[in-house]
Amino acid sequence: MTITITAFERSPDGGRGLARDTRVRWAFEEVGQPYEVRLVSFHAMKEPTHLALHPFGQIPTYEEGDLALFETGAIVLHIARRHAGLLPVDANARARAISWMFAAVNTMEPPILELGTARLLESDKPWHDERLPLVEDRVRNRLKQLSVYLGDADWLDGAFSAGDLMMVSVLLRLKSLGILDQYPNLAAYLARGEARPAYRRAFAAQLAVNTGKPPTG
Amino acid sequence: MTITITAFERSPDGGRGLARDTRVRWAFEEVGQPYEVRLVSFHAMKEPTHLALHPFGQIPTYEEGDLALFETGAIVLHIARRHAGLLPVDANARARAISWMFAAVNTMEPPILELGTARLLESDKPWHDERLPLVEDRVRNRLKQLSVYLGDADWLDGAFSAGDLMMVSVLLRLKSLGILDQYPNLAAYLARGEARPAYRRAFAAQLAVNTGKPPTG
Repeated sequence: MTITITAFERSPDGGRGLARDTRVRWAFEEVGQPYEVRLVSFHAMKEPTHLALHPFGQIPTYEEGDLALFETGAIVLHIARRHAGLLPVDANARARAISWMFAAVNTMEPPILELGTARLLESDKPWHDERLPLVEDRVRNRLKQLSVYLGDADWLDGAFSAGDLMMVSVLLRLKSLGILDQYPNLAAYLARGEARPAYRRAFAAQLAVNTGKPPTG
Repeated sequence: MTITITAFERSPDGGRGLARDTRVRWAFEEVGQPYEVRLVSFHAMKEPTHLALHPFGQIPTYEEGDLALFETGAIVLHIARRHAGLLPVDANARARAISWMFAAVNTMEPPILELGTARLLESDKPWHDERLPLVEDRVRNRLKQLSVYLGDADWLDGAFSAGDLMMVSVLLRLKSLGILDQYPNLAAYLARGEARPAYRRAFAAQLAVNTGKPPTG
């Protein structure tokens, strides 16, 4: 049965891979599952047709026959449960990988989203320069803990998992800011994620949408 | 096998149920599963023994034999998968309930956490009064969407699920702020969650820790 996801007709990041459909594309590529993409405009995302799929008017969504899902983490978990390649077979290891998925979106991502908000939506405010270091410090607190935990391991808990897919995707938001430079093992972890062939295919596919050129990978 | 979770020795909220162990206690109560609690001090949470369980030095954690988990969402999902009462039997409905769990922690909670940060950590800053309405508006944007989606339904998707448990728990952070008053169906949804006997038992148990009195419920 055909699986269809939604993605931005034109991503706010211009194709740098930060739009959340990249995470879902990456999951499909890791498990070798084909998928189709329906592009939606900012206008269409707020229309009833799309809101019926995604109550918060965002992308991505997931449709397969009668099933419609939203929320990137839930979609990645759904893919990971149905196809081998993103979750360990051992039940305990599997539960731990899911812990890391939630850690990525609920412990690591909130301060990073707040930093993005400060930079994008409040850059013209009189408090911007004084407040930004405070917000960056909150991100660094989390990065430091993650860096200590990761140590010299390649991935968070044994082999690459959906937990790594989500954590790498969250860290990608920091790539252009230079903050990761202070944590060489996290910068290397991010680079390992980006070097995965599945990630590269996912990245190329979303970039092609935004440049109007077909992926060459 | 005994299941042990961790909770604050003394919660920053004084027992109003906002500490995340309440979410896990609630899940245990919904499925009728006994659990034990080990209290940890703020100091002990940053020590190696606890960091080995929770890399970010927070509560709650979950221990059962060889298995150690962290992240509230992951723990609630683990409980929900192992015991009937928090996830639908139908596979598609189950996947949708998990979508709502992620929506609670990754779409709804980040702006609410940002509002908490603004009120608790930046209340003495010169920008506080001017910035607070901006942050509140971001929360209202999400609340409005959730309110439209919920309509006059009792729960997010059919029967009460782990998705509702997480969403109600996130909305609880707003209870004392008056913001929910503008969305009567969300205020009623929150009240329905709080009225569940399982929630009341969980709330009483965490309150007893913070008041030093045994629960009477």
